[in-house]
Amino acid sequence: MEDGNQTGHQNASFNPIGPIRCIVKLGGAAITCKNDLETINEENLKGVSSHLRQSMLTPSAEAKILGMDWSKRTGESEISCRIDDFRDQPSLGSIGFIVVHGAGSFGHFQASESGVHKGGLDQPIVKAGFVATRISVTKLNLEIVRALAREGIPSVGLSPFSCGWSTCKRNISLADLSAVTRAIDSGFVPVMHGDAVLDESLGCTILSGDVIIRHLAEHFMPEYVVFLTDVLGVYDRPPSESNAILLREIAVREDGNWSVVKPTIENVQVDITVAAHDTTGGMKTKISEAAVIAKLGIDVYIVKAGTSHSLRALSGELRSNIPDDWLGTVIRFSK
Amino acid sequence: MEDGNQTGHQNASFNPIGPIRCIVKLGGAAITCKNDLETINEENLKGVSSHLRQSMLTPSAEAKILGMDWSKRTGESEISCRIDDFRDQPSLGSIGFIVVHGAGSFGHFQASESGVHKGGLDQPIVKAGFVATRISVTKLNLEIVRALAREGIPSVGLSPFSCGWSTCKRNISLADLSAVTRAIDSGFVPVMHGDAVLDESLGCTILSGDVIIRHLAEHFMPEYVVFLTDVLGVYDRPPSESNAILLREIAVREDGNWSVVKPTIENVQVDITVAAHDTTGGMKTKISEAAVIAKLGIDVYIVKAGTSHSLRALSGELRSNIPDDWLGTVIRFSK
Repeated sequence: MEDGNQTGHQNASFNPIGPIRCIVKLGGAAITCKNDLETINEENLKGVSSHLRQSMLTPSAEAKILGMDWSKRTGESEISCRIDDFRDQPSLGSIGFIVVHGAGSFGHFQASESGVHKGGLDQPIVKAGFVATRISVTKLNLEIVRALAREGIPSVGLSPFSCGWSTCKRNISLADLSAVTRAIDSGFVPVMHGDAVLDESLGCTILSGDVIIRHLAEHFMPEYVVFLTDVLGVYDRPPSESNAILLREIAVREDGNWSVVKPTIENVQVDITVAAHDTTGGMKTKISEAAVIAKLGIDVYIVKAGTSHSLRALSGELRSNIPDDWLGTVIRFSK
Repeated sequence: MEDGNQTGHQNASFNPIGPIRCIVKLGGAAITCKNDLETINEENLKGVSSHLRQSMLTPSAEAKILGMDWSKRTGESEISCRIDDFRDQPSLGSIGFIVVHGAGSFGHFQASESGVHKGGLDQPIVKAGFVATRISVTKLNLEIVRALAREGIPSVGLSPFSCGWSTCKRNISLADLSAVTRAIDSGFVPVMHGDAVLDESLGCTILSGDVIIRHLAEHFMPEYVVFLTDVLGVYDRPPSESNAILLREIAVREDGNWSVVKPTIENVQVDITVAAHDTTGGMKTKISEAAVIAKLGIDVYIVKAGTSHSLRALSGELRSNIPDDWLGTVIRFSK
């Protein structure tokens, strides 16, 4: 299938823009209850999954959502699926999205209590923490894959550790992308996540979702990258402060430095808030990783999950023009 | 750590016999309720996990089991873990076990309803079935990893699909073992499983746990391989029949053919029972895969999970001598 506008489509169809249209980061804070251990924010996750469906697939008027999660849900004894409804559907083709999610209230507790990010696998507590961290983040990964599948997105979980990814002094040293590439080529949406991985120098560490995004962006050169967070975008100070200003556009220069283009404020300084249990850095990591991506010529949108603003960012409509009523932060390369 | 008999060990210690001592198959029928959709046989899984712990680790008299699953369990609001207890533990070192599990009542429904094993990813029902099958089998994988971790086994889930494994006409064509090897070298116990994978010729198919076992055995040349099932071993006919005879020893010849050595019965013929929803073959696949492994010079034990017979097989004590009171089937190479 090469054209999403063919007639005869009774359901979602492929919206072809290129090999990889978009890499999306689902921020841990946006999809989990950050202060409630291992608890998914079900409402937010459902909203985000619905937006992703709308952005990935072009529904026709009569579109019905055909869920791909045919597993029992907790507390239910029956499987709910309408398998026969798939028989008269058109082929989806390639979708061109990769999803990466953070850990939120999953994994951080296990990682920080044991010091997995600092390495030292010969210490029993670190080895146990590595196991415990992977259990917690793969538990979240499964729930996200299922939420996307329920929206009819052909999602497949791909753990960096399982893909054989590893680091050296916390930098990615080995990250075979063949499994990701083949999943995309076969029409699936890979769902990766921050993970505990082996580190050649430290023994082990935590590979954050933001670092994964950068690596994927460098390799796949998507048209745009979207970070879905729990605030409207990047502010000049912690957004909880009443006079915090949303930075609408950040320009990244050739040397990697960046400056605020919109709004025009003098002496803007972005304060960094890092939660105590966040072992992978907070907004600081996000901005510097985003700047690296923007330097590749890829627009980066940081936007609040579940809002109309995030749907516009995900759909790609901001590529040509950013309307004044769009709330979020765009980070762009400026020669 | 190089010696499991050092003094001062307060808990489990490494029992060094070689790089890979044992590859274990947890049969789907042994750890799930085969006729009850997506239901784990908790009692059996706990028993098997305990046996695996006893076989992998050498406990001292005061051994206390320090669980590595620090995640919330369904229905519980608190995490139960004793992290500080790890601080005075000795290093575990390499354990030399690989665990592979089947699907049982997970995955089969999704795979057979959609025909994933037959391929054809351009059909929406097959693509959806691929997604649904992976969700179901990774759900089981997570539960098994957690059960092993609760016994203090440093288990890490490794999905064949995530590892980038794929097939061509259902035979393994690409199966990078580097992630498995590095996990083992770092002292972890990889837990793999039958999975939906991409197939170069068909688009996709199901890679069974038994085929994975064979591939791992050919590469790692373990000292022995154990298949844990829900019956005592291989019988001359369906074990539900009253006059079924347990085949105690099967000899595999150079040409790959095999014959029953013990008991000595004339005209033995093994009837093949394949459940209707079993998309990967039943005992037939198991015996032929086991015969291929035995031909490598690796003893294969097929034994009932959770029994004293399985513990003896797992511990390696049958390597030197098979006592008369051991119930199970050994498959061996005979020149």
